[in-house]
Amino acid sequence: MSQFSKLTISTTCAGIGIIVGRFYERNNVQHTDLFSVKQEENSLTAIKHFKDNDTKKSLISETVRSFLPVSTVYAATQISRPPNRLQEILTFGVPSFDPLRPFENHVVLYDRRNKVPHWVFEHLKKEYVEKNDSVNRKTSEFTEDAAVHPYFRSTNADYKRSGYDRGHMAAASNHRHSQNAMDDTFCLTNIAPQVGKGFNRDIWNDLEKYVRALARKYRNVYVCTGPLYLPRLEADGKLYVKYEVIGKNNVSVPTHFFKVVVIENDKGEFEMNSFVIPNQSFPENTPLKNFLVPVETIERASGFLLFDGVPKNRLRAINGKKT
Amino acid sequence: MSQFSKLTISTTCAGIGIIVGRFYERNNVQHTDLFSVKQEENSLTAIKHFKDNDTKKSLISETVRSFLPVSTVYAATQISRPPNRLQEILTFGVPSFDPLRPFENHVVLYDRRNKVPHWVFEHLKKEYVEKNDSVNRKTSEFTEDAAVHPYFRSTNADYKRSGYDRGHMAAASNHRHSQNAMDDTFCLTNIAPQVGKGFNRDIWNDLEKYVRALARKYRNVYVCTGPLYLPRLEADGKLYVKYEVIGKNNVSVPTHFFKVVVIENDKGEFEMNSFVIPNQSFPENTPLKNFLVPVETIERASGFLLFDGVPKNRLRAINGKKT
Repeated sequence: MSQFSKLTISTTCAGIGIIVGRFYERNNVQHTDLFSVKQEENSLTAIKHFKDNDTKKSLISETVRSFLPVSTVYAATQISRPPNRLQEILTFGVPSFDPLRPFENHVVLYDRRNKVPHWVFEHLKKEYVEKNDSVNRKTSEFTEDAAVHPYFRSTNADYKRSGYDRGHMAAASNHRHSQNAMDDTFCLTNIAPQVGKGFNRDIWNDLEKYVRALARKYRNVYVCTGPLYLPRLEADGKLYVKYEVIGKNNVSVPTHFFKVVVIENDKGEFEMNSFVIPNQSFPENTPLKNFLVPVETIERASGFLLFDGVPKNRLRAINGKKT
Repeated sequence: MSQFSKLTISTTCAGIGIIVGRFYERNNVQHTDLFSVKQEENSLTAIKHFKDNDTKKSLISETVRSFLPVSTVYAATQISRPPNRLQEILTFGVPSFDPLRPFENHVVLYDRRNKVPHWVFEHLKKEYVEKNDSVNRKTSEFTEDAAVHPYFRSTNADYKRSGYDRGHMAAASNHRHSQNAMDDTFCLTNIAPQVGKGFNRDIWNDLEKYVRALARKYRNVYVCTGPLYLPRLEADGKLYVKYEVIGKNNVSVPTHFFKVVVIENDKGEFEMNSFVIPNQSFPENTPLKNFLVPVETIERASGFLLFDGVPKNRLRAINGKKT
């Protein structure tokens, strides 16, 4: 269990420091020049020293700084040039990681290149999805996310006359317990361009209803939803990823959307279902089970592992098949 | 300067905690349900408590865990279900951020979706780029990056018979002071598919030589290099991003590559030049200045801000024009 104690140490220390330190310790890569010591703790101390020394004297404008996640907020100056190699290479700032956006009842990792989410997480229970007359979807408005730098922010204007719906990743009706939580789902960081008729208003809506039905029935339902950009074989025998971009900010129109659902029953047993649906019109009553895919397909295409923490020894079924 | 002292506090605390805490404090978003207190410090304490409590009892397999950055490594179990809403939503893990990969003489942010870098940073001086008979490029071999999860790792097999070169982002010859540093540039996390003739072996090579010439002449040269996936107008009047993917792991073939160069002279004054070159064959002696673009173009397309920490009051020229 020494792994765990190391992890605990790591999690008390800083952004880039954690990641850098981790990889040193983890992979035993021979990069001793970067830090004079190999212990993770010492590496972190070195980086912390750099950061403290650095941020105090930084010349980055406050305005630009205010849009960046903390892990990116340091830059050296003429006066305090950082002392070691890694710090020297990154003297004028790390261009940051995509920002995590927590809302009242869902969490988004926003993709600043594509101007849509990477993924959106929800945890659903009966009380969140049940009809509630005091919460009204019609008063919710699509709003731009002021926490995202204007270069990377999608706007209502981007969607206007694009021919696409502003499609929810966290469904509005999954958050009926609170007007604020429902309003949150209309923030454009939770939105991606979806084909309206036959997709957003039909098959995708069916999938969302199915998820709410699960939430009414089971103890806990965990959902992760997001876009995909999948390749297609073309006539020249090669694979190409191709997708439209809309609006002044080039908001990406995903080729597919995924939704992975983890259901927990009263016995604390789990079931996982993972869906990928092409962003196109489908006939009414197309069965959802046509879109079940192995979660690995989504993981390889999206670039991240999903629900990796579900206890394997309690996972009873995947995509309807007993494990 | 209260901003700075807050930053310093943040940088002593943990990954997701930092980012979450930051956004609370920064944007004054009304999400008080997520944490019962608004102060950043208290939010961070809450998250730290969760992490400590959590990682100890986690059931994530050690194998899978070992591939994840620390910020993602926590997941609750039956036994220790996290107490607050954000933690509950993310019970079974945060699918992580793309990993930062530090090497001896360059730093990579790897793009696990596209299986190529997001960006690669270098800091060059005369001593790194000068010819050195004791370091031999021919002994360097292209190697897979074992620190990247197999789902997201590009391999030599992916490039084989693809028709594309394994193109360096950090150029091998920028790291002539050390065999290890040069070998590092052959790690596939520093590589993206490039057209060989007319691009990698010609115009791109010209650009790399130009950068080395700067490094021989000036006090410091900072370089950031990476791929772009730029949209094109098609016959239907819409913009599309289209790129090939190669090999079993669908390694993306970028449509363009960027290189941003920050030059510091002996007076501590800076000049910035930013290039975008399409990933296609160009005739010999195509002038590099044809490819100068505003850095904002690269930033909007890539999803990150570049060299944001360069002191504005010492920036004397951008793309050859005095500021």
